Amino acid sequence: MRDFSTDHRWLSINTATVRKSRGVEQPLTDIIEACAQRGIRAISPWRDQVAAAGLPAISKLVKTHGLELSGYCRGGMFPAADAAGLKAAREDNRRAVDEACELNAACLVLVVGALPGALAGQAAHKDIALSRSQVSDGIAELLEYAKASKMPLAIEPLHPMYAADRACINTMEQALDVCDALDPIRTGEDGKTQQAALGVAVDVYHVWWDPKLEAQIQRAGKDRLMAFHVCDWLTPTTDLLNDRGMMGDGVIEIPKIRGWMENQGFAGYSEVEIFSSGNWWQRESAEVLDTCIARHRSAV
Amino acid sequence: MRDFSTDHRWLSINTATVRKSRGVEQPLTDIIEACAQRGIRAISPWRDQVAAAGLPAISKLVKTHGLELSGYCRGGMFPAADAAGLKAAREDNRRAVDEACELNAACLVLVVGALPGALAGQAAHKDIALSRSQVSDGIAELLEYAKASKMPLAIEPLHPMYAADRACINTMEQALDVCDALDPIRTGEDGKTQQAALGVAVDVYHVWWDPKLEAQIQRAGKDRLMAFHVCDWLTPTTDLLNDRGMMGDGVIEIPKIRGWMENQGFAGYSEVEIFSSGNWWQRESAEVLDTCIARHRSAV
Repeated sequence: MRDFSTDHRWLSINTATVRKSRGVEQPLTDIIEACAQRGIRAISPWRDQVAAAGLPAISKLVKTHGLELSGYCRGGMFPAADAAGLKAAREDNRRAVDEACELNAACLVLVVGALPGALAGQAAHKDIALSRSQVSDGIAELLEYAKASKMPLAIEPLHPMYAADRACINTMEQALDVCDALDPIRTGEDGKTQQAALGVAVDVYHVWWDPKLEAQIQRAGKDRLMAFHVCDWLTPTTDLLNDRGMMGDGVIEIPKIRGWMENQGFAGYSEVEIFSSGNWWQRESAEVLDTCIARHRSAV
Repeated sequence: MRDFSTDHRWLSINTATVRKSRGVEQPLTDIIEACAQRGIRAISPWRDQVAAAGLPAISKLVKTHGLELSGYCRGGMFPAADAAGLKAAREDNRRAVDEACELNAACLVLVVGALPGALAGQAAHKDIALSRSQVSDGIAELLEYAKASKMPLAIEPLHPMYAADRACINTMEQALDVCDALDPIRTGEDGKTQQAALGVAVDVYHVWWDPKLEAQIQRAGKDRLMAFHVCDWLTPTTDLLNDRGMMGDGVIEIPKIRGWMENQGFAGYSEVEIFSSGNWWQRESAEVLDTCIARHRSAV
């Protein structure tokens, strides 16, 4: 297992973590400069942040600093209540693949969506099996497009508390069942590409509770383990979305889970992804980044 | 599948649902009288409510009204940080079995506990595997005592968002793995007792999201399906504990899940268990009970 205690060469910053500084939205360009200044070698930006700054400008800035993208956030949100909605999702996901390619991301992370309308507070229906079917169909179609672009797709199983409104893929087992169904030969093994075309993003916040986690990480294997996201589960957790903790402040055994990943050959970045409206977004972003570096060393 | 649309003979009220009326704690005796007045045939009381009113008084009142107990809430909370804590939990659980027997409950519901101290905001450790091991040991020991008393134990898998502080058994599959390990012959099959000694309480709020739910209900079978709890998952959910919805107000396919239960032969009560500090506990309890009756008919 890699020793993270003496440097932060394997730290990546998901840019949602410093989306706000003292409560004020920050331009992605400023975030990138602040990361580069600290010797942080990788980021994972969100599409809306990229769009606000302009894709060409971000692409250029990333290249200037030699930054890697541990992932691109995010594609997905496949289910819809009608054909027009399904078509819009399909087209938007293809644009996400194109952007990920332009930024040379390691993978496009998929938050797959759930009951249409639920995120806005009014679900169009309750048929989660239908949503899961639409997700599978949506990934299958996008996979063909992504393969042609050589952009790996990483399904991110989200915590079951998001099953209604954000993602109806909620365990590693379920995500890997989709991977095995849609990419049974693990495309990378056919010699035509360097890596699997379809895999998973393992975010400890979403999966730490799962009694089958270790077994499913073993099942995934190196070629399907595309990303590793870290933060912490606080007790108590006061908000379902925006109360993620800094690594070390909660109850997740992060080093143990990283060990399970590395036992399978995972050798990528640990990407810090914290949404925290009540805490970290209220602080100075420089302090947040410095804390991420310190905790990456001590608690990841 | 039973038709619930014309009466409420299979409605049970978990007394937490009307714990407060207009925000004020209600005596369990008043709750029981209000249920009996409405022709509600079953309740599931909480131990603290029973203790406040006195076990003999409640036992007598239940018998007077011919009420059944669809369950008794609750045993469990097995993990502890030291031997004294484990011993205290063991003794308290035996008392819970005794009380359940005195009240002639259908089963003692087990909320198994998680990381010691986490519920108070300070976990003694992060080793969830250790907690799970202590839970398994605790159930094994209690099972011997409960068998002698002929009191079935129903493990209630709790939603994964409670894995840190309330219950580290978080899926039906995990609960049934424990059942199969500790009671492999399903005690009821040996002819000495009328029913299995160990099974599960299926609360739709905790398990609705699980893609393996139907399969695990089938695996459980009639003898392990000991209780069926209903409420609803709201979008958005604003509090991790006290924002459960009334049946029909959320996204859970309650009739579909009840159908899966009944396909296995389950023929017991649908027990309404709602914690709602911001909504139902603020209303007049008579209105809450009348709404439970109406929604039992229309949405369960």
